[in-house]
Amino acid sequence: MEALGKQILVEFYDCDQAKINDVAYIENSLITATEASNATIISHNFHKFSPYGVSGVVVIAESHVAIHTWPEYNYAAVDIFTCGDTIEPWTIQEKLKEYFESQNVSSMEMKRGLFKVPRGQKLLFKPSQELQSN
Amino acid sequence: MEALGKQILVEFYDCDQAKINDVAYIENSLITATEASNATIISHNFHKFSPYGVSGVVVIAESHVAIHTWPEYNYAAVDIFTCGDTIEPWTIQEKLKEYFESQNVSSMEMKRGLFKVPRGQKLLFKPSQELQSN
Repeated sequence: MEALGKQILVEFYDCDQAKINDVAYIENSLITATEASNATIISHNFHKFSPYGVSGVVVIAESHVAIHTWPEYNYAAVDIFTCGDTIEPWTIQEKLKEYFESQNVSSMEMKRGLFKVPRGQKLLFKPSQELQSN
Repeated sequence: MEALGKQILVEFYDCDQAKINDVAYIENSLITATEASNATIISHNFHKFSPYGVSGVVVIAESHVAIHTWPEYNYAAVDIFTCGDTIEPWTIQEKLKEYFESQNVSSMEMKRGLFKVPRGQKLLFKPSQELQSN
């Protein structure tokens, strides 16, 4: 079985409370970390909630990076959904751990879109036009 | 242990190829399904890729709903990340199954942000201002 996508679910516990309540800081952190992973950013959209908490998504050509923070619990949930071989998703986790000063990180990697492919063949991330017409 | 958030990872296999390659159809499907779940939509953002495939995110007050489609494999990956007790995340899965005409759906529910709370207490989704000052 081969997978079309890979998704890393990251739990950042014991973060710096002020940093994960600062929407501009979080937006800048996610964009910088995503760029460092070699992903191609298509759009980004962040929101601050009242009285606290931030949600945001960076849509990338290779899928997305999403964040939700609960500063009152010093906790941030991050999803890194990628496809293709050119992006380094773990770079995003490493950078965000540093930016949020998280003292306790756990993560899980999931495979998304599992398909059986003939031995010796690869599941194409984005088949070319020629392949589409086959 | 109690969780701040709940995330449903849904694999929609054997979808209608044309429908999951139509960005306007997908955007309308996600918005309609998300509204039906009682979530509060804050923003939405969808993109069509060349030669095919659609990515999109609906940011909700209760977190997000994200989609990535691979029409060439009749497959769509959907994430439904929610918090609080007012939203019905499974409604989103049910509606999207119908809209995409998926013949094969699998899903997994994850807990996000686990904390130990004293017996008899609940983990608050968004504490009030009063609680914040305690």
